[in-house]
Amino acid sequence: MRWREPPAIYFEDSGNPVERSSYLIELHTNDGGSYDVVNDASSPAAGDCCAQQSSARHNWEMNYQEAAIYLQEGENNDKFFTHPKNAKALAAYLFAHNHLFYLMELSTALLLLLLSLCEAPAVPMLRLGIFVHATLELFALIVVVFELSMKMRWLGFQTFIRHKRTMVKTCVLFVQFIEAIVVLVRQTSHVRITRALRCIFLVDCRYCGAVRRNLRQIFQSLPPFIDILLLLLFFMVIFAILGFYLFSPNHSDPYFNTLENSLVNLFVLLTTSNFPDVMMPSYARNPWSCVFFIVYLSIELYFIMNLLLAVVFDTFNDIEKRKFKSLLLHKRTAIQHAYRLLITKQRPSGISFKHFEGLLRFYKPRMCARERYLTFKALNQSNTPLVSLKDFYNFYEVVGLKWKAKRNREHWFDDLPRTAFLIFKGINILVKSRVFQYTMYTVVAVNGIWILVETFMLQGGNFFSRNVPWSYIVFLTIYGVELLLKTTGLGPVEYLSSGWNLFDFSVTLFAFLGLMALAFNMEPFYFIVVLRPLQLLRLFKLKKRYRNVLDTMFELFPRMASLGLTLLIFYYCFAIVGMEFFAGVVYPNCCNTSTVADSYRWVNHTVGNKTVVEEGYYYLNNFDNILNSFVTLFELTVVNDWYIIMEGVTSQTTHWSRLYFMIFYIVTMVVMTIIVAFILDAFVFRMNYTRKNQDSEEDNGIVLEKEISKEEVVGIIELYKRTSAATEITQLQKIVLQMDKYGQMSTVFLGRRSRTKSDLSMKMYEEEIQEWYEEHSRKEESQTALQEPATASNSSLKPLSLRQRSQTVI
Amino acid sequence: MRWREPPAIYFEDSGNPVERSSYLIELHTNDGGSYDVVNDASSPAAGDCCAQQSSARHNWEMNYQEAAIYLQEGENNDKFFTHPKNAKALAAYLFAHNHLFYLMELSTALLLLLLSLCEAPAVPMLRLGIFVHATLELFALIVVVFELSMKMRWLGFQTFIRHKRTMVKTCVLFVQFIEAIVVLVRQTSHVRITRALRCIFLVDCRYCGAVRRNLRQIFQSLPPFIDILLLLLFFMVIFAILGFYLFSPNHSDPYFNTLENSLVNLFVLLTTSNFPDVMMPSYARNPWSCVFFIVYLSIELYFIMNLLLAVVFDTFNDIEKRKFKSLLLHKRTAIQHAYRLLITKQRPSGISFKHFEGLLRFYKPRMCARERYLTFKALNQSNTPLVSLKDFYNFYEVVGLKWKAKRNREHWFDDLPRTAFLIFKGINILVKSRVFQYTMYTVVAVNGIWILVETFMLQGGNFFSRNVPWSYIVFLTIYGVELLLKTTGLGPVEYLSSGWNLFDFSVTLFAFLGLMALAFNMEPFYFIVVLRPLQLLRLFKLKKRYRNVLDTMFELFPRMASLGLTLLIFYYCFAIVGMEFFAGVVYPNCCNTSTVADSYRWVNHTVGNKTVVEEGYYYLNNFDNILNSFVTLFELTVVNDWYIIMEGVTSQTTHWSRLYFMIFYIVTMVVMTIIVAFILDAFVFRMNYTRKNQDSEEDNGIVLEKEISKEEVVGIIELYKRTSAATEITQLQKIVLQMDKYGQMSTVFLGRRSRTKSDLSMKMYEEEIQEWYEEHSRKEESQTALQEPATASNSSLKPLSLRQRSQTVI
Repeated sequence: MRWREPPAIYFEDSGNPVERSSYLIELHTNDGGSYDVVNDASSPAAGDCCAQQSSARHNWEMNYQEAAIYLQEGENNDKFFTHPKNAKALAAYLFAHNHLFYLMELSTALLLLLLSLCEAPAVPMLRLGIFVHATLELFALIVVVFELSMKMRWLGFQTFIRHKRTMVKTCVLFVQFIEAIVVLVRQTSHVRITRALRCIFLVDCRYCGAVRRNLRQIFQSLPPFIDILLLLLFFMVIFAILGFYLFSPNHSDPYFNTLENSLVNLFVLLTTSNFPDVMMPSYARNPWSCVFFIVYLSIELYFIMNLLLAVVFDTFNDIEKRKFKSLLLHKRTAIQHAYRLLITKQRPSGISFKHFEGLLRFYKPRMCARERYLTFKALNQSNTPLVSLKDFYNFYEVVGLKWKAKRNREHWFDDLPRTAFLIFKGINILVKSRVFQYTMYTVVAVNGIWILVETFMLQGGNFFSRNVPWSYIVFLTIYGVELLLKTTGLGPVEYLSSGWNLFDFSVTLFAFLGLMALAFNMEPFYFIVVLRPLQLLRLFKLKKRYRNVLDTMFELFPRMASLGLTLLIFYYCFAIVGMEFFAGVVYPNCCNTSTVADSYRWVNHTVGNKTVVEEGYYYLNNFDNILNSFVTLFELTVVNDWYIIMEGVTSQTTHWSRLYFMIFYIVTMVVMTIIVAFILDAFVFRMNYTRKNQDSEEDNGIVLEKEISKEEVVGIIELYKRTSAATEITQLQKIVLQMDKYGQMSTVFLGRRSRTKSDLSMKMYEEEIQEWYEEHSRKEESQTALQEPATASNSSLKPLSLRQRSQTVI
Repeated sequence: MRWREPPAIYFEDSGNPVERSSYLIELHTNDGGSYDVVNDASSPAAGDCCAQQSSARHNWEMNYQEAAIYLQEGENNDKFFTHPKNAKALAAYLFAHNHLFYLMELSTALLLLLLSLCEAPAVPMLRLGIFVHATLELFALIVVVFELSMKMRWLGFQTFIRHKRTMVKTCVLFVQFIEAIVVLVRQTSHVRITRALRCIFLVDCRYCGAVRRNLRQIFQSLPPFIDILLLLLFFMVIFAILGFYLFSPNHSDPYFNTLENSLVNLFVLLTTSNFPDVMMPSYARNPWSCVFFIVYLSIELYFIMNLLLAVVFDTFNDIEKRKFKSLLLHKRTAIQHAYRLLITKQRPSGISFKHFEGLLRFYKPRMCARERYLTFKALNQSNTPLVSLKDFYNFYEVVGLKWKAKRNREHWFDDLPRTAFLIFKGINILVKSRVFQYTMYTVVAVNGIWILVETFMLQGGNFFSRNVPWSYIVFLTIYGVELLLKTTGLGPVEYLSSGWNLFDFSVTLFAFLGLMALAFNMEPFYFIVVLRPLQLLRLFKLKKRYRNVLDTMFELFPRMASLGLTLLIFYYCFAIVGMEFFAGVVYPNCCNTSTVADSYRWVNHTVGNKTVVEEGYYYLNNFDNILNSFVTLFELTVVNDWYIIMEGVTSQTTHWSRLYFMIFYIVTMVVMTIIVAFILDAFVFRMNYTRKNQDSEEDNGIVLEKEISKEEVVGIIELYKRTSAATEITQLQKIVLQMDKYGQMSTVFLGRRSRTKSDLSMKMYEEEIQEWYEEHSRKEESQTALQEPATASNSSLKPLSLRQRSQTVI
């Protein structure tokens, strides 16, 4: 469908905005009074636009900027009560909202965290003098102070104090500052558990929004979790008392001789770490005592622990939906605010392209003129020159699209001479044929079996000293040829656009690098050779379920990574505390008085004429520096045999140390349960989605098609000429030239983006979403009606006063 | 609402059935021809009923019986192709479908299973001679043969062969028979792994329907499970190759020195049983090698294992819904079949009470006349004398109700004299007051803390030799008084109708028995004393979430028990196999050549003048008899340190033994995942249900109210007088007397039953159910239309031919 309306109407719009940017108001009136009142008083009449042209343009620029800020706040789920309120705040806001500032934030936070590598107890290679690391810390803290002062400038003192996270950060900063100075003055490190709080600087980074969301989700899931945990602990206490009464008469049973031991061992039993062992002394005495343990494990491990997962999963599910709802409504409100700032008094029914373009200049400065126009056209579903509010609601879905001219050529070699075309066409057909694909699968399978057999034949020793095996070269050649054929047959761009091909490519590349390493005897790179079996992963393309699972895996990856990061933050806190208390307490042959002495033994004795070393190795699981602590904490997370580490440390310190380990277990249990719930939820959601949309074709992300005529492009060029935007003009002229070259009157563009969880949710909750919208606008209307009963007609668009805004969207 | 229609119309109905029971047809025609054809040909005309009254009554009796059988088949989800086809089959069906026969089935199966206690390797105390146990087995097998022959008589040879489960059972029976005879002849037990197949006799029992359903569900969940399992194993192989290449050059690392070891240890690592240990040698050499293990565990344990749960959960969810749907439609079809047999030619629009009563006599012989009539009235929602098909569809929901006359008295003591009444009323108010309840909670809490402190003070020794502690007596007295007050205040019936009160009662009773045991020094009962802390469970009544959780727990209990039984059946199979191969291979100091020798050590040496016994105890985890095997298998299920058991056995046999342990791990993993999925599903379902019905009041099961007038009762008595059913008449006359006594014209009855999962599902899938019904009837209509295009009007009621039936409901 081509538009034939005079283009001028899209691009010309010199009216005045219905509403004015609050910064502008601030500039013009400088009395800091109420926004709504001032706005009504000082809005210029429609006629005086010619006289104050430059002022009007300035007005509009300010409106564009504030609208863009609203849209950003909507996207990032920033509350509107942090919206910059005047021109000074705006400057600070803009300063604090760009990637340079974010990077500074992030690097300061990372520097602070990494300092623990160099502070005593430091990693041996990275040890720094106290003066050096304290100075570094002080420097980083000063940078944080600067960041916070910028934030205060933007938020104003009132809002700054009301913003909880920022307040906590300020307090932590204060404490850290004092401690850093104390360290610098005393020239010696004292017990600084507060270092564990450094994480908050990382969590507060703009880039760590996902971590903040995870933490919020974890805290929201806590109440039901704690309830069930209490049930769990309650049964544990009952069984501890029971076990004490039943088994303490047996003097050869070290596990139940006191109530404390009984409790600790049942706690460990809950993690099954000490399982058959804890039962054995009593089982040896009376076989029926196994009933006690079986009942305990059945209730605690197989019932209540699963109940815990169920409760968390249920809460998680519920929270996910509520989160989606509140985010959706928040975005909607943001769009309403932005819309209000972009319509003119002359045409209050929609946004013209000129204003839309102005908005996008601030919202997405990197977008080119063509894309701006395409976005406008994609939004505008009613074919009128103005984008109505209803269409504008789709802003977030459309603005992310990447636009490309639809190719007329099917293959990259269509323009080549006839002979070359035929050759490449042949390769193309070959590469796309089933025979070729299945041949490759067979080769991969044979290769897999080959590697397995080859490895099985080897019996230890250094495998790499010999020559490169011929099988390696043969298979690598086959993969190389396949890669070459595919690249030429499909064209490099199409070839690499598929994730699977990218995977093939990198594995083959690695294999080639491995060959090089073997051929030139570069020992440190031998590990690359070992990655060969990864080729086998290609076989999983064969079955639909695996494709589904692996796709889900890739979709989950960002969230998984953020959950992993959240876990690491907990690790960091525990590592710092662990280092402060337990650094250096465990060493070879340290725990001879404890029941786990064997695991810490290191004996070097001579049998015959050979020196035999008997090692328990557990002394390696220590808190001597932050890297060791992380490994130790990972071992505690895996839970198996964690009591050996606990008992080792306990025997060298006090039995209160157990609290540390038990609390760590419970914390990781929470996080792990959340991770399991998350995977469950994501997977089941995805499966339900697939089931619901079984009839629709393969999922290729969101695709939109729009046609642009030459006239339209010329119209836009005219518009830009007035604002003298040289780069935009040349870019647009290129499109016109292209059209002329192919003799087309119009070009079709394709907008594409990958599908996000939000898109899936939109589809899943389709019906409910309408209800939410209605409920939301009802609520807003009633609120506005209460406030201003006179202006009821356009009420849902009226931005609420700041206080109200923060109430509406929580 | 009271009915005033002449009662005769309900009770009189001497017409002929529209359709005749197939047994009757068989009796009358004896040609075994097609059911539909014969029926159409031989149905007597409407007029000749007076002449053939006794024959007609006989006809009706047969119809009642077949209708009852249809309804039973619908309820038990028996396929209609096993419906008895003629009078001979009916006799066998009736013989094989009563509790006596079921009990025989069950006890034979149990006898066969329990034989493994006495067969070598037997539990020492229960050892029997080969002759004795082989004879017992032969006897049990003969009983099974008898059962099967009855089944064959009922099903007919054709159906018998087509019924898969029965065929498998027959084959197993045959093998067992031969083996039992061989044992008897040779007078020595050979390797009889086939004993593991004895479980099938238990699974086939009528009472083990839940186990069969579980097994079916497990098998249905298998395909996706196996897919993910392959992914898991695939990564394991890749990492095994990698690990072998990376770590085998380190000669002090026993875990990766061959590819087989590498594989086995990564398998064990998947269960985390060997975790920090397997890493330690390489970690000691190069700290960065921990990356290998962390990546492996992250992928396998934290990602794919959770994916496995997600996939199973998803499949489980789906299966549950499909199962509910098919069961619902199956019941509907059964009701249609039954309805067709109960309507008369004169009144084809519904079932009269006379015929309904006849049906119930066969369907629920123990139901009394009053209940039958109330069920009829509850079904009959249209207030006409006949129950239409639409009403009859609610049969299964209504027939389970327990009817009781609505009491006019509020309390049990309402009839007592004034003074007594006031006293009891006071107690009643006291008992129901919040103050009393919270006082009791406080007492329980204090008691709990008291017990904890008291136990903490004790330091080993024999606690029971002293006198009864006074605190015990004080608290028991308080509980006793509470119990007394509650029983008198509420009346014993109301008191015990609450599950919580029942729990209080039994715990208090136990505490009292414990006191007796202490007072009279009955040592074997001391363990009862130890159950006191269970009182503390009462505290969980305080919070809503706990009540919810505990209620869900009780609701889940039957399914959990059946899942447990399913697990036990798997245990049994593995125990038998384990005993055949590994009995007696493990003993103290047996595995000195293996890496786990320490755990099997038993050293008795003298230090100073004391004898010190060092025990590894693991030799106790053996397969020497079936009880030991079960405990060992439970330890393997808990997974921790299972590799010690595996390596011990392996070192004494061949390394193929590992297969047994690995397969067992995978099987329990499947069952455990299903259990987790089940708990998750049940809990989330329940939570969603609660959320959906938040506004409705507390859940008290299904309650229905029906009023019966005196005239109606008299009418029923008349009806029964004609059939000379003496007990029913006396019973009904009692109701009339009761009414006369209180001068009422009618009595209100309450029907009550507890809510089942099916009720919840009905409510949850409300909308979808209508779609299913429509789809179902459409499908049936089209099938019937294809078969008989002429009789389209009443088509959905027409029972399909037997073959078709089995197709419709699968």
